[in-house]
Amino acid sequence: MIKVTLLEHTPNPERVVAMAARLCYSASGAEELAEKMTDEQVEKLVAKIVQMGHASTMEHVSFTFGIEGVSRVLTHQLVRHRLASYSQQSQRYVAEHDFEYILPPTIADKPEAKARFEALMNDIRKAYDDLSEMGVPKEDARYVLANATETKIVVTMNARSLMHFFNLRCCNRAQWEIRELAYKMLEQAKEVAPLLFKNAGASCVATGHCPEGAMTCGKFSEMIKMRVK
Amino acid sequence: MIKVTLLEHTPNPERVVAMAARLCYSASGAEELAEKMTDEQVEKLVAKIVQMGHASTMEHVSFTFGIEGVSRVLTHQLVRHRLASYSQQSQRYVAEHDFEYILPPTIADKPEAKARFEALMNDIRKAYDDLSEMGVPKEDARYVLANATETKIVVTMNARSLMHFFNLRCCNRAQWEIRELAYKMLEQAKEVAPLLFKNAGASCVATGHCPEGAMTCGKFSEMIKMRVK
Amino acid sequence: MIKVTLLEHTPNPERVVAMAARLCYSASGAEELAEKMTDEQVEKLVAKIVQMGHASTMEHVSFTFGIEGVSRVLTHQLVRHRLASYSQQSQRYVAEHDFEYILPPTIADKPEAKARFEALMNDIRKAYDDLSEMGVPKEDARYVLANATETKIVVTMNARSLMHFFNLRCCNRAQWEIRELAYKMLEQAKEVAPLLFKNAGASCVATGHCPEGAMTCGKFSEMIKMRVK
Amino acid sequence: MIKVTLLEHTPNPERVVAMAARLCYSASGAEELAEKMTDEQVEKLVAKIVQMGHASTMEHVSFTFGIEGVSRVLTHQLVRHRLASYSQQSQRYVAEHDFEYILPPTIADKPEAKARFEALMNDIRKAYDDLSEMGVPKEDARYVLANATETKIVVTMNARSLMHFFNLRCCNRAQWEIRELAYKMLEQAKEVAPLLFKNAGASCVATGHCPEGAMTCGKFSEMIKMRVK
Repeated sequence: MIKVTLLEHTPNPERVVAMAARLCYSASGAEELAEKMTDEQVEKLVAKIVQMGHASTMEHVSFTFGIEGVSRVLTHQLVRHRLASYSQQSQRYVAEHDFEYILPPTIADKPEAKARFEALMNDIRKAYDDLSEMGVPKEDARYVLANATETKIVVTMNARSLMHFFNLRCCNRAQWEIRELAYKMLEQAKEVAPLLFKNAGASCVATGHCPEGAMTCGKFSEMIKMRVK
Repeated sequence: MIKVTLLEHTPNPERVVAMAARLCYSASGAEELAEKMTDEQVEKLVAKIVQMGHASTMEHVSFTFGIEGVSRVLTHQLVRHRLASYSQQSQRYVAEHDFEYILPPTIADKPEAKARFEALMNDIRKAYDDLSEMGVPKEDARYVLANATETKIVVTMNARSLMHFFNLRCCNRAQWEIRELAYKMLEQAKEVAPLLFKNAGASCVATGHCPEGAMTCGKFSEMIKMRVK
Repeated sequence: MIKVTLLEHTPNPERVVAMAARLCYSASGAEELAEKMTDEQVEKLVAKIVQMGHASTMEHVSFTFGIEGVSRVLTHQLVRHRLASYSQQSQRYVAEHDFEYILPPTIADKPEAKARFEALMNDIRKAYDDLSEMGVPKEDARYVLANATETKIVVTMNARSLMHFFNLRCCNRAQWEIRELAYKMLEQAKEVAPLLFKNAGASCVATGHCPEGAMTCGKFSEMIKMRVK
Repeated sequence: MIKVTLLEHTPNPERVVAMAARLCYSASGAEELAEKMTDEQVEKLVAKIVQMGHASTMEHVSFTFGIEGVSRVLTHQLVRHRLASYSQQSQRYVAEHDFEYILPPTIADKPEAKARFEALMNDIRKAYDDLSEMGVPKEDARYVLANATETKIVVTMNARSLMHFFNLRCCNRAQWEIRELAYKMLEQAKEVAPLLFKNAGASCVATGHCPEGAMTCGKFSEMIKMRVK
C-alpha cells in the first residue's frame, strides 16, 4: 500500500503564486502585494493563472512528500522527473534482510501467479541472506534484489513541476503504480492548495487535449462528446 | 537601497534537511523520522551535512525573497542562475514615467560625475515621456531606459542553489550590487536556518578554497595565514 | 539587424533522435541501431516522434547559435529560458564607447520619435565617455547604457528546449524583437534538421492549440476555420 | 562487460568552448572569433578555462554515449544526474526472457557465492517466463527481475555536467560499477577533447580538494604528500 505524506510545503501557497503573478504587472513591491491582496483577489487571480497557464509563477511554491510502500520500478521512473529533488533509502547502506515487496494486481489476481511470485521473493530473500553470510557486502548483495522490492523516498517538487508530473502520471496510459502515487500526491496537494490544483491531473483533464495520439485511452474523446451534448 | 524580504520559506527547514539525509541511511520512513528526531539530533546532523557537503538534501527546502531597489544590471546577472524561479516587474506592461534608479558608489562619490549621471537620468525620463506622447507603446519606449533603472523581482531558490549563489556572489570579486544583494539574502536566510547557513558565503569561507586563481582578492591567502598562526 | 549563425550542432541530429527513440523499445544497443537504421526508417520515426511529442529523445541533439545585433531588452528575456546555455559579451569588461543600438520599428516609423531617440543615444554615449574620463570604471559607467544597446551572445539549446522556445517566442503575442530572433533561429535549425523542425513554431502551429486564452491573436481561430472548410 | 560508445558530440568542442569564453571579453562576434582564433590560441584558452573553472562555457558542447552491459543498479544511480538526457531500454515494452545480468566482483570471486547468484538468476528467468505464460503482462512480470539485470541506455551530457559527473563517480568512494562506467566515458571524451578533459576525474584530481571528509579514501592525502616532497 502506497503511503504518501505531505511533510511540508511553502506556507500560503496560493497567496504566494498570486503575489508573484501580480508583481509582473504592478508598480508595487512583493511584500506590499502579499499583504494587501484580499482573499478574493487571490482566489480570482489563481483561477486566472491556472486557466492561462502562467506556469512560471507556480514555481515559487514547493511541496515535500514522504513516500513509502512503493517499488523500485516506480522510483526508477519517478527520478526521471528532473525538475525535482530526491532523497532515497539506499540499498548500498541499508540492509534488506527483511525487505517488503510490491505485488502487481495482475499477479495478485491469479492465485497460481501469486504463489509463484511469493515463492520467488522468499528465494531472493534467502539468497540475499546467504550472500551476506558468505561475506558479500550489502552494496553487492543488493544485485539479487527484485524490482518489486519496497523503497522509501522523499520528493520535493514545485507546483509547476507537480502539474506536469500529474499531466503525465495521472494519465490512464501511465504505469499503474506511479499513477496510483500521482493521484495520492494530487489529493494531498489539493488539500492545502485547492484552487491551484483544482483542475490538475492528466493532460486531457488539465489542459484540454490528449497528447497520446493513436495510443489514447479514449477518455478524452468521451470528454469531448459529453461537452458537445 | 536594496530591500530584501524573506516572504516565505519551507517551515522547519533544518528538520526537513536532517530528515531527508537520515532517510537515506535508515529503515524508517520520512514521517516517522521527521517526528522522532530530537532537536539535538537535527542540529548534529545538519552540521555534518554542511561540513560533508551532502548538498542534495538541502534541495528540499526553499526560500522566496521579495527584492526591490535593484537595477537591471543586477537582475540580468541574477536571472543567469538557472536553478531558481523568478517573477519580475515587466517594463513591457508597467509604465516607467516615474522610474527610480540605482546610483553606483564610484559615481556617487564624485560630485561632477553624480551631476552628470543625474542629469542624464532626467533626460532619459523626459525622452521616455516624449516617446509615449508620440504614441510609442511602453514595450518600445523602454528601449531608452538605462541599465540603472530600478526593478522589482521575486526569487525562489532552494538551499543548495542559495549556497552556490552565495559562493559566487558574496565573493569580493563579484560585482558590488549583486554582492550587496547576496549578503542581504544570506542574512535573512540565516535568521530562519542558522545552522544550515552558518558557514555560507563566498567560496573561500564556505568551502575552504578560492577558485579565482590569479584573480583572487587575497582574502583566502589571509585566511590561510591566520590559521597557520 | 539581427544576425544569427548556427555555429555547431550535433552531427546527424535526426538519426540520433530516431536511434534514441528506437532504443527504448528494442533489444538492440545504440551503436547497432544508429548504424542499421535506413534513412527511410529514420524519416518515418522522426515524423512519429514529432507528432507524438516524444520530447525527451529530442534532448540528445543540441544547437549552438552565435547571435549579434540584438538589444539587452532581448537578452534579458532570452536568458530567462533556463534549459539552455549562454555566454554573453560582458559590459563589465568590454568598453562600450562605440556601442550600437537597436531601433524599435514603432520609433523608426515616426521621424520625430526617431530623432528624439537618436539624440538620446548620442547623449548617453557622451555621458558614458565623460564618466569614463572622470575615472568611473566600465562596470559602473555601464549603468547609463540603454536597454537598446547592442549585445552579442552565444546560445546552446537542445532540440526539445528549442521547440519550447519556438512555441513561446514565434507566437504573435511575443515581443517583436525576440520573435524575429526566434524565426531566424528556426530557419537555421530547419536547414540541418528539416524533419525535426518541420512543424516547429508558435504553439498554435506546432501543438494545435493556443494557450493565450482571451489574449489570443486570433490566428488559431483562423486556422481552425480554414480546416473546417 | 560495460560497453561505452561515444555516438556523437559537438564538432570542434575545444574551439567552441574557447570561442564562447572569448566572446564574453571581446567586442567581436562569435562567428568571427570561431574563425579567427588560431589552434594555439584555442589551446591556451582551454587550458585557462579548465584551470579557472570557467564552467559555463563548457556547457556549449555535448557528448552522446551509447551504454550497454550495465545493471539497473547503475542506471538508477546514473539517472539521478539531472543535468543530462536519457533514453533507456524499457522493461515495460521489451521482453526480458533472455536477460543478461551483471555479476559483482565480490560475488564472482567466491565460487560458492557465484553459484548461488547464478542459480537465482535462472530461477528469476524461469519465474518471468512462467508469469508471462500465465498471462501476466511484461510491465508486471518485470517486478521479479533483479537489480542485476542488464540494461541499455543513451546518455547525453554537456562538458560541464560531465566534469561534475567525473568528480563524483571517478572517486574511489563511488560504487564500483558506476565508477567503471565513468572511467570509460572519460576515456572516450578525452579522445575527442584531450585538453578539456586533461585533468578531469575525481574531485581530488580535478579540483585539488577532497570533499569526502572523514570518509576519504586517503588518495588525496597521498597526493598532497607527493607534492610536498
